[in-house]
Amino acid sequence: MNKMKAMEREELQACLNSAAEKLAAWKEKGVSLDLTRGKPGKEQLELAGPMLETVKGDDCFAADGTDCRNYGNLEGLPETRALFSSVLGIPADNIIIGGNASLNLMFDTVARAMLFGVYGGKEPWGKQGSIKFLCPSPGYDRHFTICQTMGIEMIPIEMTPEGPDMDTVERLVAADSSIKGIWCVPKYSNPQGYTYSDAVVERMAALECAADDFRIFWDNAYAVHELYEETVPLADIFALAKKYGKEDQIFYFASTSKITYSGAGLALFAASDNNLSQIKPYLSAQTIGPDKINQLRHVRFLKDAEGVREIMRRHAAIVRPKFEAVIRGFRENLTGIAQWTEPRGGYFVDLAVEPGCAKRVYALASQAGVKLTDVGATYPYGKDPADTHLRIAPTFPSYEELVQAIDILCLCVIQATAEKILG
Amino acid sequence: MNKMKAMEREELQACLNSAAEKLAAWKEKGVSLDLTRGKPGKEQLELAGPMLETVKGDDCFAADGTDCRNYGNLEGLPETRALFSSVLGIPADNIIIGGNASLNLMFDTVARAMLFGVYGGKEPWGKQGSIKFLCPSPGYDRHFTICQTMGIEMIPIEMTPEGPDMDTVERLVAADSSIKGIWCVPKYSNPQGYTYSDAVVERMAALECAADDFRIFWDNAYAVHELYEETVPLADIFALAKKYGKEDQIFYFASTSKITYSGAGLALFAASDNNLSQIKPYLSAQTIGPDKINQLRHVRFLKDAEGVREIMRRHAAIVRPKFEAVIRGFRENLTGIAQWTEPRGGYFVDLAVEPGCAKRVYALASQAGVKLTDVGATYPYGKDPADTHLRIAPTFPSYEELVQAIDILCLCVIQATAEKILG
Repeated sequence: MNKMKAMEREELQACLNSAAEKLAAWKEKGVSLDLTRGKPGKEQLELAGPMLETVKGDDCFAADGTDCRNYGNLEGLPETRALFSSVLGIPADNIIIGGNASLNLMFDTVARAMLFGVYGGKEPWGKQGSIKFLCPSPGYDRHFTICQTMGIEMIPIEMTPEGPDMDTVERLVAADSSIKGIWCVPKYSNPQGYTYSDAVVERMAALECAADDFRIFWDNAYAVHELYEETVPLADIFALAKKYGKEDQIFYFASTSKITYSGAGLALFAASDNNLSQIKPYLSAQTIGPDKINQLRHVRFLKDAEGVREIMRRHAAIVRPKFEAVIRGFRENLTGIAQWTEPRGGYFVDLAVEPGCAKRVYALASQAGVKLTDVGATYPYGKDPADTHLRIAPTFPSYEELVQAIDILCLCVIQATAEKILG
Repeated sequence: MNKMKAMEREELQACLNSAAEKLAAWKEKGVSLDLTRGKPGKEQLELAGPMLETVKGDDCFAADGTDCRNYGNLEGLPETRALFSSVLGIPADNIIIGGNASLNLMFDTVARAMLFGVYGGKEPWGKQGSIKFLCPSPGYDRHFTICQTMGIEMIPIEMTPEGPDMDTVERLVAADSSIKGIWCVPKYSNPQGYTYSDAVVERMAALECAADDFRIFWDNAYAVHELYEETVPLADIFALAKKYGKEDQIFYFASTSKITYSGAGLALFAASDNNLSQIKPYLSAQTIGPDKINQLRHVRFLKDAEGVREIMRRHAAIVRPKFEAVIRGFRENLTGIAQWTEPRGGYFVDLAVEPGCAKRVYALASQAGVKLTDVGATYPYGKDPADTHLRIAPTFPSYEELVQAIDILCLCVIQATAEKILG
């Protein structure tokens, strides 16, 4: 229970007054801080600087002789696919390299399923009337936006520290053939930073679905985004799915957006042989192929799986103190008053305030000059039913700005909670 | 009339024997030549070499301060849009910058129309039953592949040296609301190298359509791809369409594939304010944005419209002798026997042989070691009804290879024509 509920009204009022007073002081200072942006900070972007000088005009050839300046190569250069194969443990032949944004690959994958269907399905999704996706929530708003754009109904699924509530997932997909997919960020989930347990990954890999065209959208956005040397393992969904003969149920996504550059990185899509054989003709009608020189840059700069681990260690050295500052601020100020996650990687911390208070915290923070992610953004249709979750993005502000912003945020939480309990 | 038809049988047989003999000699040499590839040659690719060194890791900022390494900017950098605005004469605000391939923008534009409809339309194209596109033919095979992939019926429209047969186009679109689009390569058309006359562009701009959701797909792939100092002007379709209140009917595409790099260039899409306001929400659900560092590279390297003209002059200096070798070969060997186009820009020459002979020419060339583009590839459904057109791509082979290949091709045409007339 919230420890503020145990307070006398006077004590509560004193808490409220003290917080409000401090917030007024912050307001006078006129700060302008932003905790919304789940993007790399300036120092992180500097890490990939040398990448831009790895390819010169006379040195644009892939290992197999492909002239990366010219047309050709739909699936990605062999060395690029090999690099990600070694990083992610997926056979190179099952990997397709894309352009800058994995979101684009996800949208296109759903669009393709709507227009043409998926391997093993009898009809395009778009020809089957009303269809649905399961949405572990809180989750990534841009996944939900894809569904909303496509007119796909979203069913929220409760997230736990082990992953989505699999009892519900299994029950729903077994019963309803109009459920065509589930969005998963299996490692360091957005926004809670949870990593699916081995048991959850195995149950996901083995899903028995009423639909013959159901797909798991496995967005492994934070596959290598560790904050600590001791990493958090994620079970290999392709290997597990194979065991159950279910590898065709998986669409896998990843990118270098938070390894090299968010504005000039590589995205990738991986799927079973059956899926790729169904998809490639459409892909080949859609594009002549993504930027090959940027693939070459990435391979020359990152080199191999150890090269990827090395740059991620350097990211962690920059990002870890920021995450720790957030957690420290919450521990010092909000223990017993709110709950938060303490991720060992990824890009977000989830702060769960007293139910019914999140919108008020947002408004107070906004008045004090701290921008928070819209309350509800991490839920389908933008609606957090309990009005409780706030997504905190520690990476983009400087350390000093972050510490200030968290101080202010904690005051807002205290004020909002006191107001709520006082009624 | 084909001058070979006026020959006595003996003379014809002598022609045939002589050609066959020379072809046999070529066969013995075992050449392996390729006239299929409409892609830049090696020397051309070297022109953009310095571009790769224009952006370093510490110098990735756009003029407005945008950090091109990070997320953000859906529509393209202001300076990139301004560059193409000055090159193409389209307002910068109406231009959206894409990734490497304009084909991708075209496919996505059709896919979006299928799923969500277009501005002014009442329903998605995909919900309207059978729909159709007009396809000026011969044309670009990848346009036709998009239609075929989407299940859009294709109606061939005859191409003339002035552009598509507009009488037929006007009649059809006025009568049939299931016709939703027309594919146009208005300048140096693929494969004939025809440029639409001012009158054709104006009639296109003014099209009165039964469908309220008809679109002209204006693929200006060869907008600046001149072979000679004296350029071939193309009327401004947006300006003309505005005069008729029809600017919403135009979807415009272009790319730097044959200016900088086919494998690492920029594509662009342009459309009216109304169209963009309808499209942007979908675009924003689809992607966080294309590679911004590559945009910066292009702006720094090309600089302005004069910079683009300058690199195109250098391309022309490499490509012009190749086109002229093709034309010279045809003039010397095929005058009175076949027809060909003599483009002043673009990437292709169209060779029209005696009806019923194109497939035979293809087969003979193939036996002699010269690969030709599949007969029919430039027609919807891959079917050239008269079996007459061969698409010649002069840019990729070296000059020496090209001259050999054209020699061989001319022999094949003579043999096939003689065979045909002899019966």
